[in-house]
Amino acid sequence: LKSICDIDGVYTQGASAGIYEKKSRLDMACIYVPDCRASAGVFTRNKFRAACVDYTENLTKSGKVFKAVIINAGNANAATGPEGKDNVIKTVQRAADKLGISPQEVAVASTGVIGKQLPMDKILKGLDQLLAEPKTQEPQQAAEAILTLDTKVKLAHEQAGKLIVSGFAKGAGMIAPNMATMLGFIVTNADIPSKSLRVKLQSAVEKSFNMVSVDTDTSTNDMVLILSTGTESIEGKEQEFSQLLEKTCVSLARQIAADGEGASKLIEAHVSGARSESEARIVAKNVIDSPLVKTAMHGSDPNWGRIMMAIGKSPDIRFLPSGVDVTLAKQLVFKQGEPTEFNRQELSEKLKSETVRIEVNLNSGAFEATSWGCDLSKTYIDINTEYN
Amino acid sequence: LKSICDIDGVYTQGASAGIYEKKSRLDMACIYVPDCRASAGVFTRNKFRAACVDYTENLTKSGKVFKAVIINAGNANAATGPEGKDNVIKTVQRAADKLGISPQEVAVASTGVIGKQLPMDKILKGLDQLLAEPKTQEPQQAAEAILTLDTKVKLAHEQAGKLIVSGFAKGAGMIAPNMATMLGFIVTNADIPSKSLRVKLQSAVEKSFNMVSVDTDTSTNDMVLILSTGTESIEGKEQEFSQLLEKTCVSLARQIAADGEGASKLIEAHVSGARSESEARIVAKNVIDSPLVKTAMHGSDPNWGRIMMAIGKSPDIRFLPSGVDVTLAKQLVFKQGEPTEFNRQELSEKLKSETVRIEVNLNSGAFEATSWGCDLSKTYIDINTEYN
Repeated sequence: LKSICDIDGVYTQGASAGIYEKKSRLDMACIYVPDCRASAGVFTRNKFRAACVDYTENLTKSGKVFKAVIINAGNANAATGPEGKDNVIKTVQRAADKLGISPQEVAVASTGVIGKQLPMDKILKGLDQLLAEPKTQEPQQAAEAILTLDTKVKLAHEQAGKLIVSGFAKGAGMIAPNMATMLGFIVTNADIPSKSLRVKLQSAVEKSFNMVSVDTDTSTNDMVLILSTGTESIEGKEQEFSQLLEKTCVSLARQIAADGEGASKLIEAHVSGARSESEARIVAKNVIDSPLVKTAMHGSDPNWGRIMMAIGKSPDIRFLPSGVDVTLAKQLVFKQGEPTEFNRQELSEKLKSETVRIEVNLNSGAFEATSWGCDLSKTYIDINTEYN
Repeated sequence: LKSICDIDGVYTQGASAGIYEKKSRLDMACIYVPDCRASAGVFTRNKFRAACVDYTENLTKSGKVFKAVIINAGNANAATGPEGKDNVIKTVQRAADKLGISPQEVAVASTGVIGKQLPMDKILKGLDQLLAEPKTQEPQQAAEAILTLDTKVKLAHEQAGKLIVSGFAKGAGMIAPNMATMLGFIVTNADIPSKSLRVKLQSAVEKSFNMVSVDTDTSTNDMVLILSTGTESIEGKEQEFSQLLEKTCVSLARQIAADGEGASKLIEAHVSGARSESEARIVAKNVIDSPLVKTAMHGSDPNWGRIMMAIGKSPDIRFLPSGVDVTLAKQLVFKQGEPTEFNRQELSEKLKSETVRIEVNLNSGAFEATSWGCDLSKTYIDINTEYN
């Protein structure tokens, strides 16, 4: 399987620090790019963002290029006050010491339960273990170590000639669009300055991670980071690079939606004919966010009336209800403002597939957007009724 | 039990029209106030609002006072195109004929499945039955007839001297704030012109029905209507009338939240110390809307970190995370930006009650708001996986 280690000079691995009290598993990971030439990130806008989010965002704003990323699962280090901030500094300091680099070259990301202090003895011992041989290439380990309630590792790899964009991500619950919406780590060999990288990452995130929702809850810890080794020129290939980056992000975003807590299927909503891109995005998100659409899809119930409710949810979107077409799993169910005749039994069978696509044409403009979500099942309730 | 029929000249009853194919139940209701002096309504802002919503809102805008309201359950008459509009006209016409009043004195409300045409033969026969003796007082029948997946009738009655505000409502799923969010019918004897009544109703709705959410889904059919017999002067008692009206609406709103689909408890979120009322409202709604808060409350899990996530969800709200206090079921769990020490087991026991109150002080201003929601259980999934 292709991974970020297919890019020269990129190292990654995982370790078991014992952050989860009840089970033994990989729970820390690092990415190490000794000759990193550019880096950037996008971060959650939740007001109770974790201490590591503040720290890493400030790092990217300072213009410093980070060469290492330290990630832990099992504890979000969010809503932890001044002690939480100190713990980030301690983590960064120890990692920098072990790697022989400046503390300002170390980014930190955390995910897990909110409101508990990091177990710093375990974190520091975990770091010693993790960074004992930093030039190790174990991408599968790292992709596994960052997971929480995910059931699958999430990898994406795009390549055009020698130009590579590769990444991995985590996310299953508390997934809702706002800037970044999970943890994602991407590495490229494109030769591009950090500032441009930031712009391109932001644009790719808008069309991928920010169009995913599992449960409308925006995490305190989301971030997507990108690092570049800068060995491949992208002169005349800027567009191509942007496309590789967007494809990588969309692939990871789809994997997150498909692995949503308790999900049995991916729901993809495509909205066209909108008066603006932002209106297309709002309608597409309303469709995948609706608990009533999600439960109907879970039951493979062709109850398309709920899709109409969701399309109409935001009153300020500019379209005429009488002009709308809706297709559910390739079956036209609503045409020019009126119900169509169709075989419910056949459509119900089609809805039993792993991916259900909903197409909405507002017939009011030239803009479109795609969103990704999942069905809502009893397993979501089971998982979240007693998380601790 | 007190009801709208405690106001002189107010009649209401229910009938079984057979709209539900699989069960025999009351499914149509009327309210008849022959000497109605003022009337008003607020209506869903969903773009796919039902034909009856358009019709009844136009009626209120025309300045006409309606004397009768015809309500059916089992079919929303939404997303039904021109045929749906015709069916409203036919309903109004027949009701007006039976009552010997003008069609412009008849309001219509519907609730039920979206995207199916009304069974007009049944509706018209139901009307004949319902209006055979229009001066009947069976408030319990009417309150029952308008229910869909509700498990309880919802009545509220407020009185100060001879001044009465009384109403009933329905709503269990597809409940989310935007203007009105369910069906609610209120009658008063206050002597007040329709225009002022509209303003006061809007204001009461903002603080009651618009602060309720079961599942964030905004219905196509929501409306709250008020009718007044105008026999009681409110000179010098305007404030008192407003309070009675708000109390009635809040009572009905709380009953809707407590009877949310699959709900086992009411969640009440009170936000104070906000910089504006609208910011207090947004934060209060974010707390009760969060599926992760709802599932934690379902499991009586004192996982207050999720409340922090929900408080922080909307990035533009003006407050400092380091100044926030949060109290869950009277236990202070977060004080001035830091976790407190408390007995988890004791708090978990407290969370098993029928009502859980969450108090958030943003400590940034003088505004406050209260919202009402419910927990999220597997029964919600059961109910909504196969609604049809």
